[in-house]
Amino acid sequence: MSEKEKKALTDISSLGEFGLIDHLTKHIQLKNPGTLKGIGDDAAVLEAGNELVLVSKDLLVEGIHFDMVYTPLKHLGYKAVAVNLSDIYAMNGTPAQVIIGLAVSSRYSLEALEELYEGMLLACDKYGVDMAGGDTTASPSGMVLSITVIGHSPKEKVVYRGGSAVNDLICVSGSLGGAYCGLLVLKREKAAFKGNPDMQPDLGSYEHVLERQLKPEPRRDIVELLNKAGVVPTSMIDVSDGLASEVLHLCKNSGNGAVIYEEHIPIDQRMAAVAHEFNIDPTTCALSGGEDYELLFTVGQEDYEKVKEMEGIQIIGHVADATQGAHLVTTSGQWIELTAQGWDGLKKREE
Amino acid sequence: MSEKEKKALTDISSLGEFGLIDHLTKHIQLKNPGTLKGIGDDAAVLEAGNELVLVSKDLLVEGIHFDMVYTPLKHLGYKAVAVNLSDIYAMNGTPAQVIIGLAVSSRYSLEALEELYEGMLLACDKYGVDMAGGDTTASPSGMVLSITVIGHSPKEKVVYRGGSAVNDLICVSGSLGGAYCGLLVLKREKAAFKGNPDMQPDLGSYEHVLERQLKPEPRRDIVELLNKAGVVPTSMIDVSDGLASEVLHLCKNSGNGAVIYEEHIPIDQRMAAVAHEFNIDPTTCALSGGEDYELLFTVGQEDYEKVKEMEGIQIIGHVADATQGAHLVTTSGQWIELTAQGWDGLKKREE
Repeated sequence: MSEKEKKALTDISSLGEFGLIDHLTKHIQLKNPGTLKGIGDDAAVLEAGNELVLVSKDLLVEGIHFDMVYTPLKHLGYKAVAVNLSDIYAMNGTPAQVIIGLAVSSRYSLEALEELYEGMLLACDKYGVDMAGGDTTASPSGMVLSITVIGHSPKEKVVYRGGSAVNDLICVSGSLGGAYCGLLVLKREKAAFKGNPDMQPDLGSYEHVLERQLKPEPRRDIVELLNKAGVVPTSMIDVSDGLASEVLHLCKNSGNGAVIYEEHIPIDQRMAAVAHEFNIDPTTCALSGGEDYELLFTVGQEDYEKVKEMEGIQIIGHVADATQGAHLVTTSGQWIELTAQGWDGLKKREE
Repeated sequence: MSEKEKKALTDISSLGEFGLIDHLTKHIQLKNPGTLKGIGDDAAVLEAGNELVLVSKDLLVEGIHFDMVYTPLKHLGYKAVAVNLSDIYAMNGTPAQVIIGLAVSSRYSLEALEELYEGMLLACDKYGVDMAGGDTTASPSGMVLSITVIGHSPKEKVVYRGGSAVNDLICVSGSLGGAYCGLLVLKREKAAFKGNPDMQPDLGSYEHVLERQLKPEPRRDIVELLNKAGVVPTSMIDVSDGLASEVLHLCKNSGNGAVIYEEHIPIDQRMAAVAHEFNIDPTTCALSGGEDYELLFTVGQEDYEKVKEMEGIQIIGHVADATQGAHLVTTSGQWIELTAQGWDGLKKREE
């Protein structure tokens, strides 16, 4: 290839993950009447009899999504399944099967893979899901784990990213930012370990954020809570890339704007303490740190009384008109436009 | 880790792909009544209303399954989708959606990925399948392509690997061994290219085997032919690892033995010419060369008259009692026990 030809090529990191997907898939037209929803939500939605079938997939790549230095394989397996189940819950569905794709180099022993499977099967057991198939193959270096999850939902219950109306309430489960702070701690320990391999890290005081990072739990309980109360969200997404990015996803898909209030963003004090230790604003961790796997959803005003009493759910703002854009109102009363600075696997990153 | 601990670990290449999958998944118990078939067939089979949902997945790893030196990206995309569709046809089903997982290093340009998607969408178009979702992410090196295909089948039509009875006829579509010979040619050209980068390969006389390797077609036509004739195979599998390996799969899953006849194995003369050039017996290519993606199936004796007239289908033997084992009867009348020497992605290989 000549230098001129080389220059004409576009660096994929310039597009980011979402830009790249958009670019590659924008011309796709769905052909099967049974494909109710294709690319662009937490899961594909397929028609099968009276039920909807939900299918989602995630790839986890060694060196990008996990680092073997600080990721125990059992945790990795558990998390890999957990984050996929989260996509099905984010559609208000019930996951039922996972299909596992695993590419590994010969550097991994059988015992290591047993640990990985132990973690995956633990998550499957906890959430009543079957490991129903897969493909295992070699890799020239490192590990790639590809998980497909299949779930179902009655037609009237499925919740998409689009569907909110102006003045709907924006709610989020649990607390945010913890998983990112856990990653900061692990990266610091890795650097320290490199300097002194004999060190014994004391991670006791970081237990909360480490668990958020290493063993996230998909929020089946929230989906059940809403179902029990008869609340069907108007839109929903799981928080994998940071709150700001996910609010923008809901806005884009519903054709609306949003206002969220800093004072209402759920911050766990144990996360805030770690954030301060790293000189980062806890709100920034919540907005831009990824991998919390909480549920972000909108409900109609008529559900306000029901939702405000629910434990583990926080109302953080409301849906606005598209012309108003998407903003964060800070505790000091400033309006700041939300931008997606979320975790992006395609950005070039320092290690 | 101490040297002693290291020694106690098991090298995964010692198990092979099937051994590894068996080992890791043998304790799995299915929990959902909707999971009709889990690990161990061409696709998982899930219940959804009156239809069955079929889900299969394949991982394609750069440096293991394809080599960028001789795999045009458009062909790679086409083949990646095609081989997944083949798994659904091998269940006598109709594929309807694919979900794409793509991990790429920054070495790939946007234009390269456009080519890849062009190939994938071409296969989708040809077979009436929707690209309905996916996950795109970074990779520290090379490319991993993970494709999940979802299909459906009426309950009475789905065909498993198990299900044959003694004396059923063993049939195979198309011809075998071509894809492997195509790979031999490409590897030779790669070696020649390394020696002299200015060379212009003349691949014209190898067109047939190269197409078998680079652009396999899943056998929808065979499934349609059988359907039209009212023939429902008693068992079926697609030939991805070589005929011997697939015959053994059917035997194992049905609890039967098999006899196949060398003289009836479909050999294309263009393949045989290449095999001879490489000093390999064409029958060996058919038995042990992989990636032909033909359909291997069994039918009851009552379908003999229908099947023997079908173009593109060859009756190669019959199902035997398990105690008789699985044998090839050579043209000289020798009985040779079939062994799976098929392509195995986990074996250490020379490049």
